[in-house]
Amino acid sequence: MPFEVFILGNNSAIPAHGRHPTSQVVNHHEKFYLVDCGEGTQIQLSKYKIKRSRLDHIFISHLHGDHYFGLIGLITSFHLLRREKPLHIYAPKGLKEILEMQLNVSDTKLVFELIFHETKFDSAEILLENDDLTISSFPVKHRIPTTGFLFREKNIQRKVRTEKLEAESIPHELIVELKKGKDVILNEKKYLSAEWTFPPASPRSYAFCADTLYHEELKNYIQGCNLVYHEATFMEESSERAKQTFHSTAKQAATMAQIASVKHLLLGHFSAKYEDLLPLLIEAKEIFAHTKLAIEGLKFEVE
Amino acid sequence: MPFEVFILGNNSAIPAHGRHPTSQVVNHHEKFYLVDCGEGTQIQLSKYKIKRSRLDHIFISHLHGDHYFGLIGLITSFHLLRREKPLHIYAPKGLKEILEMQLNVSDTKLVFELIFHETKFDSAEILLENDDLTISSFPVKHRIPTTGFLFREKNIQRKVRTEKLEAESIPHELIVELKKGKDVILNEKKYLSAEWTFPPASPRSYAFCADTLYHEELKNYIQGCNLVYHEATFMEESSERAKQTFHSTAKQAATMAQIASVKHLLLGHFSAKYEDLLPLLIEAKEIFAHTKLAIEGLKFEVE
Repeated sequence: MPFEVFILGNNSAIPAHGRHPTSQVVNHHEKFYLVDCGEGTQIQLSKYKIKRSRLDHIFISHLHGDHYFGLIGLITSFHLLRREKPLHIYAPKGLKEILEMQLNVSDTKLVFELIFHETKFDSAEILLENDDLTISSFPVKHRIPTTGFLFREKNIQRKVRTEKLEAESIPHELIVELKKGKDVILNEKKYLSAEWTFPPASPRSYAFCADTLYHEELKNYIQGCNLVYHEATFMEESSERAKQTFHSTAKQAATMAQIASVKHLLLGHFSAKYEDLLPLLIEAKEIFAHTKLAIEGLKFEVE
Repeated sequence: MPFEVFILGNNSAIPAHGRHPTSQVVNHHEKFYLVDCGEGTQIQLSKYKIKRSRLDHIFISHLHGDHYFGLIGLITSFHLLRREKPLHIYAPKGLKEILEMQLNVSDTKLVFELIFHETKFDSAEILLENDDLTISSFPVKHRIPTTGFLFREKNIQRKVRTEKLEAESIPHELIVELKKGKDVILNEKKYLSAEWTFPPASPRSYAFCADTLYHEELKNYIQGCNLVYHEATFMEESSERAKQTFHSTAKQAATMAQIASVKHLLLGHFSAKYEDLLPLLIEAKEIFAHTKLAIEGLKFEVE
């Protein structure tokens, strides 16, 4: 079952070099989650043929425009397309009032329900949970209140060996127990979970670290993640500028990946000053080899 | 000297088929004016290599999102690029508060001055005037308060015949009078304006009719214009839908061009339901031959 991240936008504040502001779609078992929604996100969705209607949960890291200016356009399109399902928005305080004001001046009464969940900035919290996945927010350090988001799979059950099932038909209730790892006796016959099932794959996790200064505490939230997206607005030569603007360098992103023992790193949120992104990748790879650039239109598997 | 309209976006509310929401740049004598600013306008400006910094005056027809959602992104980019010149925005009541709220939540104090001019909806009014051009708004009929914009050249002065100037050097003050059409006697010699100058070209005009129902009064504002942009959200077969949504059909746009005796018509604001726009053009041309489609990336001269 897929667990992957699709990049819709990877640029920092000023769109440049054909790059768009931050937005990504996380696909977990064919459930789609939108993370940040910079200007033009709905146009990017349409360009990459990702159906808007598959989105029910939108996560906004903070209220700098390059992370949410596209949201009102997307909501308006949902309205015009007569969406029926509720739409959940997880975002900092203040967004609700802006959206409501924009809907008011256009005399728009939405035909679907918009449900706001205000994120908090002092600690991590679970935002959403289903059978397979937990989505939490965690605080990062930026000029205004900002959270990252962690997508973590739950402990997955063991998988039944199909060849055993084909050879012998057994009741569903028995399968449920075997998948939990339990041995069962039925009609005096013993069914061993270890014989009838495979061990499960390890639960995977993806962390989106939003816009942030480099700060060591962050490692506690993303420890051991399979894939981490970390901003790399600048290169190390501009580390002063990074600090002033509450951003990170490629080297810092890589250092974070290293100290948090993550498996793979994705760099994004590139400054408009870099047309060529290769030097950022090289800078990061010197510290952390498993680094990739979050290029628009590419899909990254959470391995 | 150029007088032309560059199309950045031509689609109605829902972006579709790679088409963007409404936005155009009017270039008059190398002064650039932005008319409407749908989502993604700054990205379109950059795509077509139109320098953002050349814009000092932005005209917003109404507060449906597809006409202004791109404005806050453009303003934020101006801020990040340390714009120094003031920026004038001509728009309906309500926009100022939305923009201010968006700047507040991101803790942004603009480094340049934003000057709002509230448009009115009961009659036409002059919004801006310089030596060569008058820009006015005029009311149209839409679901919420909406204006069109009229760009009208002033009476242009006569042009001096260069071959006369090359043959005889005369004082600058004398040239100024001759260009006004006056005959002058200097050192007992008579200088005839008709001999020294050409008659001026007729002043040209461009009308942007925004989103509107077909209504006959409109013709009073756009009478005789050289170029008129009129929305054609639908075709005549959807005229009921057009009426319900306060929009026009291609046939109605053409009828307006005809009864207002304009020279050229530009159709825009196409519904997402039309991937192929040719049928709209054909429908309009049956009534008014000098019709073109406002295709993104194309420049239309005000002839």
